[in-house]
Amino acid sequence: MLKLLIKEDTLIAPLDVDAQQLALERQAKLTKPAGALGRLEALSVRLAGMTGRLDWLPTRRAVIVCAADHGVVAQGVSAYPQSVTAQMVLNFLRGGAAINVLARQMEARVIVVDAGVAAEIPPHPDLVSGKIAWGTADMSVGPAMTSEQARQSLELGREIVAAEIARGLDILAVGEMGIGNTTAASAIIAAVTGQRADRVTGRGTGITDEQWAHKVAVVERALQVNQPVDQDTLAKVGGFEIGVMAGLMLGAAERRIPVIVDGLISTSAALIAAQADPLVKGYLIAGHRSVEPGHYIALEWLGLTPLLDLELRLGEGTGAVLAIPLIEAAMRTLNEMATFESAGVSGPA
Amino acid sequence: MLKLLIKEDTLIAPLDVDAQQLALERQAKLTKPAGALGRLEALSVRLAGMTGRLDWLPTRRAVIVCAADHGVVAQGVSAYPQSVTAQMVLNFLRGGAAINVLARQMEARVIVVDAGVAAEIPPHPDLVSGKIAWGTADMSVGPAMTSEQARQSLELGREIVAAEIARGLDILAVGEMGIGNTTAASAIIAAVTGQRADRVTGRGTGITDEQWAHKVAVVERALQVNQPVDQDTLAKVGGFEIGVMAGLMLGAAERRIPVIVDGLISTSAALIAAQADPLVKGYLIAGHRSVEPGHYIALEWLGLTPLLDLELRLGEGTGAVLAIPLIEAAMRTLNEMATFESAGVSGPA
Repeated sequence: MLKLLIKEDTLIAPLDVDAQQLALERQAKLTKPAGALGRLEALSVRLAGMTGRLDWLPTRRAVIVCAADHGVVAQGVSAYPQSVTAQMVLNFLRGGAAINVLARQMEARVIVVDAGVAAEIPPHPDLVSGKIAWGTADMSVGPAMTSEQARQSLELGREIVAAEIARGLDILAVGEMGIGNTTAASAIIAAVTGQRADRVTGRGTGITDEQWAHKVAVVERALQVNQPVDQDTLAKVGGFEIGVMAGLMLGAAERRIPVIVDGLISTSAALIAAQADPLVKGYLIAGHRSVEPGHYIALEWLGLTPLLDLELRLGEGTGAVLAIPLIEAAMRTLNEMATFESAGVSGPA
Repeated sequence: MLKLLIKEDTLIAPLDVDAQQLALERQAKLTKPAGALGRLEALSVRLAGMTGRLDWLPTRRAVIVCAADHGVVAQGVSAYPQSVTAQMVLNFLRGGAAINVLARQMEARVIVVDAGVAAEIPPHPDLVSGKIAWGTADMSVGPAMTSEQARQSLELGREIVAAEIARGLDILAVGEMGIGNTTAASAIIAAVTGQRADRVTGRGTGITDEQWAHKVAVVERALQVNQPVDQDTLAKVGGFEIGVMAGLMLGAAERRIPVIVDGLISTSAALIAAQADPLVKGYLIAGHRSVEPGHYIALEWLGLTPLLDLELRLGEGTGAVLAIPLIEAAMRTLNEMATFESAGVSGPA
């Protein structure tokens, strides 16, 4: 059982209810009508519960972009050729992708992980070379990877986050790149939530109606051929980058570090992480709601409400990084606002 | 006609369609699937149209918080006593309110305008003392102000924005404070959009069902007594801070400066501005969707889709300032991302 392999040293604590209570009490004293900051108030309470602190701030920020290739692209499920995965990894390392631009704006460092790209990626200071294989096998004809590879990908994620924590980390955004990975993510979401393939499969980078029907059929075939159940879902219909992301989430949650999940693929990794330890859900923040139909289904299963809804469908961690200012705002208002008493403002009549 | 009074030197240009076309063309070349940045792409095109520039950035930021009192509070429409308006103005000037916290985070300067607070406000470097009167008259028994006072409030807004432009301004957020002003805003929204009072009236700072029914009746009476039509809406059922905000929007739009509107009251001011010159709508960005039911009705009438939906209902400009990072992100991705050609990334197969 994969669960045992990772559960042995997974030690995720429940949220700190005392800190949550103190945050709630403080919110009631601030110079604003009760509840007027809406979801920012609830978010500040959750963050206090995650970190055990009312004065926590998301100061040291990282986005970890995990890349890998997918054997299922042989079935013609993507609008883009497989070579784009490696090309985009180079684009990340040169700072030219959307995630680089947004991470610079939000003052987050970008770490790129080669978890299984089907091409040689030259060394780079911002690259973790963790290639588990040159892409997964085609999940529509058999398991995407071995159980050992699945375990490796989870462990790699936990090692990377440990290294980042050692460098200094207050909040982690998790993103990805991998041509074909919306197909794997859709299969995971169908397997975990029990939803039909046509409800959780979207258009990825952009495909026609006909190509979409084919993609749904490929997801159905992958589920039929592999019959993924519980802890073997990652190995059967996952991806190396998805396993690494799940490992990042577990490792961060163990250290009480809030994790912002991004779109469809990042959230499918959250499902894998939650299979390993459901307590991880307490440490996850949904950055945004993607246009991919499976995304919202996965978020609902996790009990997460996205902060943004900007019709994004890019991945890379873009929708996660965009939410950082809202997370900061939730904590700054909790900490820096005057109270009715300190400001001499009257309460309700 | 009030329209003539302000229209004489209102010179708002239509959006720059050439700049919009160039922005659209550039978006198509960036290293991402077409449309994958969703509403940020559309926003970048709008901003290029507003400013006439592709390389515009919201660097010099201000939020102008306009405060005034409302005679209609005599009807018992608010959960808070009128004295809170002045108390909160002092809180703004001491930096303790939510808008101060968020403006510091977003590096926006805060300017507070006393447009008609029913109390003496001592001078302060961040305060514009523009008191038109010590609160409006009770609109449920007659006009809230004279036509001359309405004109004065609009002119004050245009003067203030001119002064801020002289200090350096790339983007303006518009917020407010005024106990009772959701009642005035609801009346404006009902008058301009033709919606029934019970559809556009919400709970403001927090009132019971019974108090809400009373507030609706007060809005209905104000509309019945005053019969506001077109350009006399501000004078009959408005507020001094609402007039100043409308003037700010008109003045900014004339100078091609994008304006972020906030919640119910700020958006009611946008309706007043749009009555004066419909071209102002092109320069408005809806920062967020408030929980106030009239807000969305007003936004729809203006043709604006809010960027955030965080269940805020605070005003002060909070929901406007929170949207600044998204506006910056829209322009940074347009300007700083690599193109498929420059990055050597393949397009769709």
